[in-house]
Amino acid sequence: MQIGLVGLGRMGGNMRERLRNAGHTVVGYDTNPELSDVGHLSDLVERLDRPRAVWVMVPAGDPTQQVIDQLASLLRPGDTVVDGGNSRWTDDEKHAKELGARGIGFVDAGVSGGVWGLQNGYALMVGGDKEHVDRLQPVFDALKPEGPYGFVHAGRVGAGHFAKMVHNGIEYAMMQAYAEGWELLEKVDSVDNVREVFRSWQEGTVIRSWLLDLAVNALDEDEHLDRLRGYAEDSGEGRWTVEAAIDHAVPLPAITASLFARFASRQEDSPQMKMIAALRNQFGGHAVESAKKA
Amino acid sequence: MQIGLVGLGRMGGNMRERLRNAGHTVVGYDTNPELSDVGHLSDLVERLDRPRAVWVMVPAGDPTQQVIDQLASLLRPGDTVVDGGNSRWTDDEKHAKELGARGIGFVDAGVSGGVWGLQNGYALMVGGDKEHVDRLQPVFDALKPEGPYGFVHAGRVGAGHFAKMVHNGIEYAMMQAYAEGWELLEKVDSVDNVREVFRSWQEGTVIRSWLLDLAVNALDEDEHLDRLRGYAEDSGEGRWTVEAAIDHAVPLPAITASLFARFASRQEDSPQMKMIAALRNQFGGHAVESAKKA
Amino acid sequence: MQIGLVGLGRMGGNMRERLRNAGHTVVGYDTNPELSDVGHLSDLVERLDRPRAVWVMVPAGDPTQQVIDQLASLLRPGDTVVDGGNSRWTDDEKHAKELGARGIGFVDAGVSGGVWGLQNGYALMVGGDKEHVDRLQPVFDALKPEGPYGFVHAGRVGAGHFAKMVHNGIEYAMMQAYAEGWELLEKVDSVDNVREVFRSWQEGTVIRSWLLDLAVNALDEDEHLDRLRGYAEDSGEGRWTVEAAIDHAVPLPAITASLFARFASRQEDSPQMKMIAALRNQFGGHAVESAKKA
Amino acid sequence: MQIGLVGLGRMGGNMRERLRNAGHTVVGYDTNPELSDVGHLSDLVERLDRPRAVWVMVPAGDPTQQVIDQLASLLRPGDTVVDGGNSRWTDDEKHAKELGARGIGFVDAGVSGGVWGLQNGYALMVGGDKEHVDRLQPVFDALKPEGPYGFVHAGRVGAGHFAKMVHNGIEYAMMQAYAEGWELLEKVDSVDNVREVFRSWQEGTVIRSWLLDLAVNALDEDEHLDRLRGYAEDSGEGRWTVEAAIDHAVPLPAITASLFARFASRQEDSPQMKMIAALRNQFGGHAVESAKKA
Repeated sequence: MQIGLVGLGRMGGNMRERLRNAGHTVVGYDTNPELSDVGHLSDLVERLDRPRAVWVMVPAGDPTQQVIDQLASLLRPGDTVVDGGNSRWTDDEKHAKELGARGIGFVDAGVSGGVWGLQNGYALMVGGDKEHVDRLQPVFDALKPEGPYGFVHAGRVGAGHFAKMVHNGIEYAMMQAYAEGWELLEKVDSVDNVREVFRSWQEGTVIRSWLLDLAVNALDEDEHLDRLRGYAEDSGEGRWTVEAAIDHAVPLPAITASLFARFASRQEDSPQMKMIAALRNQFGGHAVESAKKA
Repeated sequence: MQIGLVGLGRMGGNMRERLRNAGHTVVGYDTNPELSDVGHLSDLVERLDRPRAVWVMVPAGDPTQQVIDQLASLLRPGDTVVDGGNSRWTDDEKHAKELGARGIGFVDAGVSGGVWGLQNGYALMVGGDKEHVDRLQPVFDALKPEGPYGFVHAGRVGAGHFAKMVHNGIEYAMMQAYAEGWELLEKVDSVDNVREVFRSWQEGTVIRSWLLDLAVNALDEDEHLDRLRGYAEDSGEGRWTVEAAIDHAVPLPAITASLFARFASRQEDSPQMKMIAALRNQFGGHAVESAKKA
Repeated sequence: MQIGLVGLGRMGGNMRERLRNAGHTVVGYDTNPELSDVGHLSDLVERLDRPRAVWVMVPAGDPTQQVIDQLASLLRPGDTVVDGGNSRWTDDEKHAKELGARGIGFVDAGVSGGVWGLQNGYALMVGGDKEHVDRLQPVFDALKPEGPYGFVHAGRVGAGHFAKMVHNGIEYAMMQAYAEGWELLEKVDSVDNVREVFRSWQEGTVIRSWLLDLAVNALDEDEHLDRLRGYAEDSGEGRWTVEAAIDHAVPLPAITASLFARFASRQEDSPQMKMIAALRNQFGGHAVESAKKA
Repeated sequence: MQIGLVGLGRMGGNMRERLRNAGHTVVGYDTNPELSDVGHLSDLVERLDRPRAVWVMVPAGDPTQQVIDQLASLLRPGDTVVDGGNSRWTDDEKHAKELGARGIGFVDAGVSGGVWGLQNGYALMVGGDKEHVDRLQPVFDALKPEGPYGFVHAGRVGAGHFAKMVHNGIEYAMMQAYAEGWELLEKVDSVDNVREVFRSWQEGTVIRSWLLDLAVNALDEDEHLDRLRGYAEDSGEGRWTVEAAIDHAVPLPAITASLFARFASRQEDSPQMKMIAALRNQFGGHAVESAKKA
């Protein structure tokens, strides 16, 4: 089928390629003319037969909002927009309402797969009305991995991004699990081959996983990770997961601990631990370490 | 090769079968005569040619200690004992010293695999001197899964059980990760098909794993887990992991949170939350809930 | 000075009394005519000389918004509104803008003191422009405790509620600290007098505090808190504290743990621990507990 | 009464002074001859009338064990030893047995008060048989603060150190509570006077405490704690508290989080966060920060 694709960065570019390999006709637009198939978003819209489907793959927040706003005026009743970016689920209902007021359908799609997606397929979690999801099914089928997994119609508008957000929250805690275990093994004298311990876990254990495979890859490249700093960004979805949990009074101790560990990793010095040091000094006369000279 | 196997419970019994399937000669002893190949532990020792190898597969703590003590007097210099149970790594050095004083070798082996091990093989993490580990290699090869993974000589005595213990700590946090995500998805109105979300994650996602496959199995049997109580035992290795981390000043926030969640799950009522309720009542006149009538 | 006071519940009623005891003229309005000094909010406004000051002491969210909206149309340029309720700090800027557009000043005031405030005074944390805060100073002076403490102009609009919110977050973790220690002491055989241990801490220790005094009061009334259920509500400010921390990438492990402990205390059964039990059963054949029959 | 005092460091020296001020006869021994009243421990024993009482105030672990061993051979039946150091409660029973075999009584005393104890008195939590505790009561009365608080006979041998250990665990989480709140306030633009917010909390709030007073002192000396590094030692009792909780299956999320925050504060770079960075790089091609060049 025909599909418009807005945003041809690393993710969008690979998705265009995977869709074309599957025989679909993709008209891509990007603000970078070297990547774009058309000069303007309006050209993209004109090049598609009605009813049109346009997949938006730009950063969450303002960039996505701007594209949605433009599409609201360029598209016609019966067309459908898919937001495949990392939008917060709370934005989805807003976008669905804005587009729905003009008769335009909306589907939110959480997309997982990273740099491996072009080859192995992207896991897709989508939300929206059945009629809109069904129209896009050939596109979803081309993007998803082969076999019975990797696609779910999770629920109504917002459910796709919500499921993807929770996926990422789980991902945080799984990464933290391996990371904690690795640090402990590295600290202990009796274990002299932590990388091989990790490698051995790849079969026959309860904790075998794709992330474990990646950990072994990383240790093969840099056995003690000496070339890295212990500094980790967070992409937003971990924060939203904790906020959603707070909204629903669900305790998420492991996922939240994983998020906070990332926050702490980015601090040159910890203000809260300065206060701890100050208090210890006040009541116990404990020695404190002075701040480093600039 | 010949091997003695002490302890023929669910794990030991299956290991005997897997070893025999691989062509090894196994003499098994168990206090339950219906399971045992011999009448006494001394019979087991007599039936093996020297230098002997005896694999101990009994519960950690006193039962293992008793078997080690008996073997210390029954075996001869040049023989080797493997402790394949869930012993704490700190016991291993004690056992190695006790046996070593009599010229008997000692290897500790952490074993993962559970009820799936008979068919798929057991992941083995072993610790000890190279000469003792090398002698047992045919046995390890028969027990481990096929292929390049599932076995590691992790380091000196204690390293096998330490690595297995950390494996279990990681396992706790991974399970907690999926569990937190599942609860959050179940709470949210927009997502109407949590089981299918989990199923979809089995391919193409960052969080695909064997544990995720098991979660889908469990949801296929009982979609909302209505038939279970939220009650989880812990087997000891999670506690030891946290204690080892404390010994080495390694922060383990996600693993510890997972352990504490299990502790809390086993309390009918939470004493600490009674104190919270009491304090709220003291300063704010907040309503409190009375304890249930017996 | 003259002041209007909207909302005469437990907090507002006591504050009216404390203000009158200090010689101020208070015109109080409440939707409950038995508590109210006037029949309508407009009567309250009419009874005050210009420039007027009106203190709003109603529940956060919609009720506060409605009163602010009414006051926006009833008051005149030069008048000032104080929001002394538990509003989220993010509402303050909105309210300040709405009122400011009509020349009406706005001050947000976080108020601590609970049922003890009438007698001992209320701790006040206020935010807003200096000119508006200064106008209200006689009222603040009457409400606050005697002595040099208990009042702060924390910063611009929103700072008062933000400071109060953080106060409550700290309160959560302090309560949790005592609660955890109490549970551990109650569990240990060697300690046979936990209440007296708590009492002894009231002097000479690092952890002496007003909350500790309250804990001793509670234990004097019910030594083992047998009459309470381990069930704790949360008032919103703890949640907002964690959300503010997430916004600013500040790790708050102890405060967040305290919030999550309250969430968990309110669950009859824990969904996430059902998943843990289900996974243990899948891989290990571990016994699980069935859900209780209804 | 007469009392021997072994260990005249900062704590022991001040306690000698406080005991003498109360009219007791103190014979002090220290390995540092400038501090010591006698040349050898045996001199101390000889200078006391029977039945003797000797207070041991030396570092926990080996130093305390050595003094206990020496006293076991120097003292006589009917004498009593008090261990006022920071011994782990599990050592107390061992010491009580060793001394009891020779008819010597044993009392364990947890002591709080730090540098403020000389002036204000030391809070004492003691464990042991009533007859031994009663004999020492005049000494306890002299050391403790005036008034009804600051002393408790918490239970049998070990209960004193256990109660003191839990006190320190609570202390960790209370300090962490203030520290987290302080960092959050410092991060927020609208609050421009965090020190004064803290000062205002000293009256009328739920969170007023002695630790809060100390925090204000610290901020008065160094408003933003710029002169300190965010680095905090831990003294052992926090670790033991968590270990005791694990032994008793008591969840301690806030206290444990506080301990782990200290562990993390002492790491130049976080190994576990290197693993997080490595995994992010593997699956997402996320940029990582290289380790700093030495």
